[in-house]
Amino acid sequence: MRNVLIVALGLAAAATPLRAEMPPKPARLGLCAACHGEHGMAQIPGAPNLAGQRLDYLREALRQYRDGRRNVALMKAAIGPISDEELDQLARWYSAQTPVAPGP
Amino acid sequence: MRNVLIVALGLAAAATPLRAEMPPKPARLGLCAACHGEHGMAQIPGAPNLAGQRLDYLREALRQYRDGRRNVALMKAAIGPISDEELDQLARWYSAQTPVAPGP
Repeated sequence: MRNVLIVALGLAAAATPLRAEMPPKPARLGLCAACHGEHGMAQIPGAPNLAGQRLDYLREALRQYRDGRRNVALMKAAIGPISDEELDQLARWYSAQTPVAPGP
Repeated sequence: MRNVLIVALGLAAAATPLRAEMPPKPARLGLCAACHGEHGMAQIPGAPNLAGQRLDYLREALRQYRDGRRNVALMKAAIGPISDEELDQLARWYSAQTPVAPGP
């Protein structure tokens, strides 16, 4: 019986796609989620979807907003004096989300 | 037989989700596609995915790149003196594409 269970678990593991684990939910996600959604689908006109966006692009965009190189007052205020580590957590979170196709 | 065919076609139509038609491929898509992919999945590091991005966001971003309000030399050069109509066609094209989940 034990062997059957091990084989069954092995088959289940083999059938699971090798995807990166979902990163932990960032502590500062709430403010972002107000416009970009908790899972990266925009909640308001003018805000972009972030779900599944490339990690390198998200990380660089967040840095640019923080540093004022990308000059958007709302984003600079929303991000505030964020650390590189917090910024990285947010970028990883949104990049790991799956985009949802719009409804009919 | 004719009636059976009509019923079958009717059922097939009912099963098809009501999605907006795919917009025509813009004449100027080639240059964009070099980095963003013909279907909006980025081809190079640093370039964002555009597939399924919100139309209003894409349209405004393209305007900002064209007008220099979003100051990215590469994008300004790539877009050039594009008309509002051409810009709209590109935004509609990319917004209508379906994001592809990254492989395992």
